Parts: sequence; C-alpha cells; structure tokens
Amino acid sequence: MRQSNLLIPTLKENPNDAEIKSHQLLVRAGFMRQIASGLYSFLPLGNRVLRKVEQIVREEMDEAGASEMLMPALQPSELWKESGRWETFGPELMRINDRHEREFALGATHEEVITSIIRDELKSYKKLPLTVYQIQSKFRDEKRPRFGLLRGREFLMKDAYSFHESFESLDETYEKLFNAYKNIFSRCGLDFRAVIADSGAMGGKDTHEFMVLSEVGEDVIAYSDTSDYAANIEMAPVITTYETSDEKLKELQKVETPNQKTMEEVADYLGHSLDQGIKALMFKVDEQLVLVITRGDHEVNDVKLKNLYDASFVDLASEEETRQAMNAGFGSLGPVGVPEDIDIVADHAVQSLVNVSCGANEDGYHYMNVTPDRDFKVSQYADLRFIQEGDPSPDGNGKIKFARGIEVGHVFKLGRYYSEKMNATYLDQNGKANSFIMGCYGIGVSRTLAAIVEQHHDDNGITWPAQVAPYHVHLLALNVKKNEQLELAEEIYESLKKAGIEVLFDDRQERAGVKFADSDLMGIPLRITVGKRAAEGYVEVKYRDSGEQEDVQQTEIINTVRSFISEVK
Amino acid sequence: MRQSNLLIPTLKENPNDAEIKSHQLLVRAGFMRQIASGLYSFLPLGNRVLRKVEQIVREEMDEAGASEMLMPALQPSELWKESGRWETFGPELMRINDRHEREFALGATHEEVITSIIRDELKSYKKLPLTVYQIQSKFRDEKRPRFGLLRGREFLMKDAYSFHESFESLDETYEKLFNAYKNIFSRCGLDFRAVIADSGAMGGKDTHEFMVLSEVGEDVIAYSDTSDYAANIEMAPVITTYETSDEKLKELQKVETPNQKTMEEVADYLGHSLDQGIKALMFKVDEQLVLVITRGDHEVNDVKLKNLYDASFVDLASEEETRQAMNAGFGSLGPVGVPEDIDIVADHAVQSLVNVSCGANEDGYHYMNVTPDRDFKVSQYADLRFIQEGDPSPDGNGKIKFARGIEVGHVFKLGRYYSEKMNATYLDQNGKANSFIMGCYGIGVSRTLAAIVEQHHDDNGITWPAQVAPYHVHLLALNVKKNEQLELAEEIYESLKKAGIEVLFDDRQERAGVKFADSDLMGIPLRITVGKRAAEGYVEVKYRDSGEQEDVQQTEIINTVRSFISEVK
Repeated sequence: MRQSNLLIPTLKENPNDAEIKSHQLLVRAGFMRQIASGLYSFLPLGNRVLRKVEQIVREEMDEAGASEMLMPALQPSELWKESGRWETFGPELMRINDRHEREFALGATHEEVITSIIRDELKSYKKLPLTVYQIQSKFRDEKRPRFGLLRGREFLMKDAYSFHESFESLDETYEKLFNAYKNIFSRCGLDFRAVIADSGAMGGKDTHEFMVLSEVGEDVIAYSDTSDYAANIEMAPVITTYETSDEKLKELQKVETPNQKTMEEVADYLGHSLDQGIKALMFKVDEQLVLVITRGDHEVNDVKLKNLYDASFVDLASEEETRQAMNAGFGSLGPVGVPEDIDIVADHAVQSLVNVSCGANEDGYHYMNVTPDRDFKVSQYADLRFIQEGDPSPDGNGKIKFARGIEVGHVFKLGRYYSEKMNATYLDQNGKANSFIMGCYGIGVSRTLAAIVEQHHDDNGITWPAQVAPYHVHLLALNVKKNEQLELAEEIYESLKKAGIEVLFDDRQERAGVKFADSDLMGIPLRITVGKRAAEGYVEVKYRDSGEQEDVQQTEIINTVRSFISEVK
Repeated sequence: MRQSNLLIPTLKENPNDAEIKSHQLLVRAGFMRQIASGLYSFLPLGNRVLRKVEQIVREEMDEAGASEMLMPALQPSELWKESGRWETFGPELMRINDRHEREFALGATHEEVITSIIRDELKSYKKLPLTVYQIQSKFRDEKRPRFGLLRGREFLMKDAYSFHESFESLDETYEKLFNAYKNIFSRCGLDFRAVIADSGAMGGKDTHEFMVLSEVGEDVIAYSDTSDYAANIEMAPVITTYETSDEKLKELQKVETPNQKTMEEVADYLGHSLDQGIKALMFKVDEQLVLVITRGDHEVNDVKLKNLYDASFVDLASEEETRQAMNAGFGSLGPVGVPEDIDIVADHAVQSLVNVSCGANEDGYHYMNVTPDRDFKVSQYADLRFIQEGDPSPDGNGKIKFARGIEVGHVFKLGRYYSEKMNATYLDQNGKANSFIMGCYGIGVSRTLAAIVEQHHDDNGITWPAQVAPYHVHLLALNVKKNEQLELAEEIYESLKKAGIEVLFDDRQERAGVKFADSDLMGIPLRITVGKRAAEGYVEVKYRDSGEQEDVQQTEIINTVRSFISEVK
C-alpha cells in the first residue's frame, strides 16, 4: 500500500488523556482515534493489526475443534431476566428500548443468547460436546473508561461457549482451549502467564485468566520463580509452615496505648516488630459478624474468608457495627474477651505466636504477652492471608514473586449455572432430560492489541512482532524528488508486492527525518530505505526491534525479507 | 469439519413466519435462527457464507484502492446533531443513553463519524483523494422487520466513504468502486443490474443501486431489453413521442356521470378507452397546490414532479384541501376552469390529445370533447409520468421491460452535503480552506447472502455458487455402521483436508434418506457419497446444481474436486 493513500495521522506529542504507553503510541502512530470516552475508531493500520490477531484467534479456535458463528449485539431482555443478570449486571450493561418499547441489552457477553439457541436446537446427547465461538464488538458502559483499549466501552472480543454431558468432557474441552489460548498469545509475541483465578459468583470451579505481564496491569499475579505456577494473588494458597517460639510464656498485661491505632503505630509504641502483634478485623460474612485475626505483618484475603464460610457476601463491618458488638473501635480490636456470639477465626501463622500484643477491645488500650489458646480460643485456624513475595510457591517449587498483569483471556467452567436458570436440557442415552454442563472462554481482541504494544515498544515507538505487524516491510523512498531513488523504490515496491510480501511504501513528499521518525513510531519490523546508494542499486535494511542494519543489493532484497519472515514464523 | 461436531439444526417444515425462499431455506438448512423480530444469529454454516462474501468484498475494495478501518457502533449524538440527522432520521435510528445520560446513536451508517475523523486528521490536499471502508454490524429499527435477512434490524454492512478535492476526482473513484461492485456481485454468482437511482434528500447527483433481480424484491426496475440500461422505475425518463390525432375538434360538452369516480369507471360509462381520458391529481409541492394531469392510462411519478419544482416535499393533497381549492372531490377533478392561483402542469402525452374526457370540477359531472390549449391552459408540459413496459428505453436502445430487484449495493455522490454541515475542510494548493467533496458506497453483506439464496435454490434446497458455498465438498458416509464405508470415507476425508479442500463430512449415525435430504437442503456444490461400492473403492460424485452424477474411483477424487473448483473460479 502507498502511504500517500493511507490515513496514518501521526503525532509528535502524546495525547493529553493517554496515561500508558499503548494508549500514547497507538494514537501517536496513527493506529486509532478516540471518538468519545472509551470509544475508538481503528484507522487502517490499527485495523490491520486487529485483523491479524483475529486471524490467529480464528485459526487456533478452529484447530481446537470450535466452530465460528455470529450472534446479534441486540439481545432481548427476556433472556437476561431468565438468567437473572438483567438485575445483577448493573449499569455496565447498556440497555435500549426499540420503537415498540421492548427492552434490549447491548451484548456485553452472550451466555444467555447461546444458551437459548442450544436449548431450542440441541436435543440429544449425540450432538455433545459442542463448542462455538464468535468474534464481535461487545459493549460495557465502564464507569471510568481509561487506559485506551485496556478499558473501553466498545471492544472487540472473541467469546466461546461449550456444552457437555459430563464434567470430564468439560475438562477435556477446557484443556484444549487452554492450550489454544497458549498458542494464540505466544503467536502474538506476548510474555504471559495462565493464572488461577477466582470463579466469583458463577458457581464454577476451575477458572484461569491469561495475564500479559505488564507494569500497567490492574491485577497482581503471584508466580513461582522456578515453576510455571501462577495465580491471581487472591487465589494463591499459603503453604508456609511456622515454628513456634520456645520463649517462656509471660503474664498477660494490659497497657495504655493512647492514640495508637494502626499496627505500625502500636508496634512502634510498644517497641516490637510488626510480626509480634496480632491484627484483628471485624467482617460481615453474609449476616454473621466474624473477627478475623492474622499476624501483624499479614493481610486478610477476603476471598479465602468467603470460601471458608462458603458465603455469598463478605465485607468489613462498619465502625458502628463493630463498636456495637465489641464496645471498641477499629484501632483496639483483639481476640481476648470477645462476646461468645462472635466467631473468631485465625490465620495459621497466629497459632505459633507467643507473648505478642493485640487490641484490648477498649479504646486506647492493648494487651501485651498474649498467647493464643491460653488467652483466647479461636473457632478455627485456616489459610486466611494474602500470599507474600518470598513465600514458598503453592506447587512446592520455588518462591513466590509478584508481577502485574493485563487480563487478555479467561477460561471458565460454568457448570450448570446458566442451563439450570434457563432450563436448557438435552435427553441423555436413557431419554432423561439433563441440564447442559457449560464452559465459557473469552479473549479481548482489541485489548490484546494494546497488551502487545505494552510489551513491544522503545523510546522511538512501537516494535511490532512480525506475526501481528500491520505490514512486514516499510519501504522508504528517502527523497522522492531524486529520480534514481524514486524509480528504484517503485521497482522494489512492485517486486515485493509481486512476491506476496506485505509492504507499506512511504512515497510521500516529506523530509527524511519525518519519514524515519514516522517509521520508528509505526514499528513495522523491517525497514528498507532507498537513499543515497540508490544509483549503485544498494538499499539499507534495518530491523526495527534489534536496530541492526545492513546495506543490501537490490537483487538480494526479496531473499532477505523472506528469510526474516520465515525466521519469525 | 465433521458434521457431528457442528451445529446444523435442519428442519423438515418451513418456519411459520418465513414468507420468502431465502428466509425459509436459510432457517430450514440450519444457517441461521431468529432471536427476536429482525434479529438473527448466524449458525456455523451461515457464518461461513457470510465470511466468504465479506472476503470477496474486502479483496475487491482493497483492489480498488480503499483501505479498511473500523469505527465504533456507538456514536455520540453531537455528531448527528451537526449533520442534522439526529432530527431527520426518525425512529429507525436507535438511540441509547449511557450511565452519565449522554446520548448516543447505534450506528445505522457512519457518514458523521468518518467526516469528523477526516475533519480532525486530514488537513492538506496532498492527502486526497482518500477512500476508506469498514465491514460491521449496523442497526436500524425497522417498523416491520420481515423477509428474514432482507429487512432486519441488525445486519452486516460494508460501508465506504471517499474524500476529494474535485468532482472529477469523485467521478474517478465512483467509477472504480462501481466496477468493484460489479466484480463483487459477479463473484457472488448474482444476476444483477446497476440501476440509476434517486439521490433523495442528499443533494447528490449520480447514484446507482445494485439490484439483484428477484420476484421478491421491493423495488421495480425499468431495464432495456437490448442494452444494459436500467433505472429505478422512479428515475427512468420517458422519451416516447406522441402523434396528435387529426380528428376534427368537437364542441366541449358537460355530461352527468353519477357515482363514476375512477378513470376506469368514467371511461366505461362514457364508452371510450382509458387513453381517451385526462387524469387530474391535486398535489402539494412544498406549500403550493399543483394540479397534475396525465393521460388516463398513465401514472404520475412524483419524483419527477418534485424535480420539476426543485421541491423538498411532494405529496397528494388531502380530499379536504382539494375540495376547498376546487369545489369538487377527487373523482371529478379536471383542468377546465381551474382557479388562477393553481398551477396546472401536464405530462407530454396530454398535449397530443383531442376530443377526450376529464372531470368537470363538479361532483358527478365530466366534460367530453376536451382539447388541451383550446379548453384549458397549462403552465408547463413536462415528463411527469412513470415509464411503462414497451416504452422506448431512455438510452435509445430497445424497449423497456420491468423486473423486481433486491437492493444489495448503493454508490452515491454526496458532494459537500456532510462536509458543509459539519464544517469539514482541508487546505488547497493555495492555502485556502475548502469543504471536502464526498462519496459513499454501501453493500448489504447479510442481505447479499439472502439474495444469493433467492437466485440459487430449487425444490430440494439451496444450490450455492461454489465461490460462496459454506464448503466445497459434502462427503457422506452413507452407513457409518458398515466398516468399509466408514473407513473409506475417513480416508477420503483426510486426503481432502490434506489437499486443502473445504469439506464437510457427514459422519452422523443417520439414515441415508436423512443424509441426502440434509445435503440437498444445505446446498454444498459437490457431494461425494461413500455407499455400496465402497468395497470396490468407488464413490458417487453428484453436482448439486446440475444434478449430474458419476461414479469416481478413489484415486481420482482429488482431481475431480480440483477441476470442479478451478472451473468455477
């Protein structure tokens, strides 16, 4: 394609609202433009990358045995009411009335629609298992759209759904798609982890998020420094064992701690380290008040608390609720002398503590020389804290490190969540009606594009991996007013096109500096510059990523390009 | 693909709501399902055809020099208010508020968005001309969705927009895309006409609709029986010349015509043929009353009337308005003795009439022996009637025939309609700001799919042209319980896949009759049946469209398939 015919509005400066690199660079390099908060147009270069990612997704999904379909974005509210999500999804679900005042949702996801189709069309176990997918624009009315494509309101997504007779069959498909996802993100040139994730309110069991490692990610991943173990930090179990001190037990002592409220203030005031104190927090678990205690240097993981109680709701109690139950505020809570109707649960680490401090359930006072089981009873010791860097990896291999990640994919065992609510059944071998067992599998296609840029850029611009680059070759005619340069460039352009190589030809009447800067910004992996040595039949070939460059004779150009492309494939 | 893994819910009966063949067959053959009025899911087979049409569109658009992009479906109302269409588009434009109560339109078309992008990003004449396109779901809230994909509320569309410095440049691009459209619809196997169309309220000049000839089309096309002239019936000029009768003028005579109101009733009552009467209709042209007269066997074409007056609005006057102006009702209107403030315009055919009848502007009376210019004056003779079958073709070649057509494409010279309203300018060579000259170009991708089925089916089902067929080969293992059949079929399946041939393999445990019926219904062009002669290594090859069949030896299958595919390409 000739650059003079293509809309690539590059910018020298970062746009004001762009906080992260992918947002800045995709706008500056002319790949996209915002038309309203969280809504982007993909200009020709951006669209080409989008199509390449889409094609990789399509190939790997087909290879995994899924078949593509296309469901409408407009979805009748009746289906969402059957699943209950018309009420629970909240304002992120965009809703619209048609001219006859019938309510519709703008597809944020398609579980309801596909379940209704399968309910109507698939009656027999013989047709199972079945996996379908689509690639389509989705809508979510984010409260605060930000970070460009990372949190937009309309975005391209691949969503897939599978239907099964048994959990074993679901497991098989789950694994197939898990592997397909690994192929997809590898082919996109991404450094990612498949991370154990929280199944949330869906009632499902296994679920993994595919996280692209990046400073700007909104999630924290706990991963092993030696194995491929990785989990959302909320989901990583702590397998640390604690040695009990052989220190002699001292007598419990109540001390005044005026205005000392945080763990740090109290430890400082009493002159001990953080891990010599007990932290106590009052939670509401469904309707029950529970006092959760951990070692002073640990943090309560409320997902673990929720799972421990098999609860559907967990949150910190309000200061008012706490004071009413304990006669003390947040700063002085402790496990000693707690009313009997309040459950106390403790993290495993607490059990090994000896002669430590804790709140006295009286404002301005703490206990010293507290020892669990002597001074208070807990109803249960359990794994209740967040894992920390340096903890042993839960799979027994190596130690935990933290990283931030951008979620680009999600695989999820739904079980019978939707099929039961929507009464979607098939007849099994014995003619008995059973609810389908389901899985769902998403990939943020446009988000993946942004994640690639987060991992592939330098100070001068984007450095696209060849597999997803908008073009393979950027051909620059350095000075189109010089005949020998323009002619040679035109010749090379034609021969590259004839060889089936994707080439963008900068045939613009612009200064060399502008052309080089734009080329670096756009990040096409191979640059061929027709410049001063044109008369000799020599061009400069430069690799965008490594910065390596060499002069190549005209006759060798196709070979050079081909060997580069085959190398990266 | 194995049919056992694919969702193809075929039906024996036509769905109740399906009035036309494409709707019936696409549902019955398992290509699509309705999820709400005018909203369809494309199941895997339907999606494959959609992708093939899309790919043909993409290739031809790229070849014509257009570049693909992708704009959001959600469009801020501000842009539509700039163009004025927020008010004028009416209830077909779906509107939605976001969580902050900002108004958005759901993209019915993208003139406003692309004009705003170009306004912001393209400042110099050097970047012109520019053509961009996208392929995307569009939304229009039809009052009465019907005919399946022909009039739906969410549909796949290719829309393109071009920007120019001059009308000459627009003409060039228009012609390029015109030819691209011809290639696209030819490659889709369609019998179509490029038809001169009404430019409507857009102020543009040239516009063509691409019409697929079909009984179920909503538009009537007037085309020449010998040349390639074709026009929307509203747009075809009448070039007929009329000979004036040399009959002697008779005296004007007023006669009673009790209860005779229509042209047919009056002609019958007075005992003359239809073409011996004058038809008179009262129109409102903007705010002006105009009496339009034609020969009794002709029909007024209000587009021509509108163009004659350069009006923005034309409609029949109400009976009340008519009576107030003329003292007579619809059944007795005529051009004799009309108040002076009412314009009379006449179709050319009227000028040659002698001694004919017309309404007397008095209920229950008509005049006989009326002769124009003696008995009444007209302010203008003009071409004001619809063309009729048998009229000479406006291009001077052959005679006019009528056909019905399905509009699948539209090319349109917009001129400065949007750029002026939205203040979209570039700087020309002299540094002067000019409004862009624009064109727009649409293709209904999902509608094209339906149009193909309308032209390609028989009593047993669809007969897909190979270029857009969901698969090229339908391989049937007739009796999967017979080992030699299943084994041979599996072998052939693998060899076809290996040869890169698109094959659907019916490996289901179903009766032969079911397999044949389903295969005919789906319409894959080449059927290979592995049946009784499997042991000898023979299969039956049948061409879906022609019905021809032959027994082919296993070793010859790939060659047979390849020669068929290359033939159709």
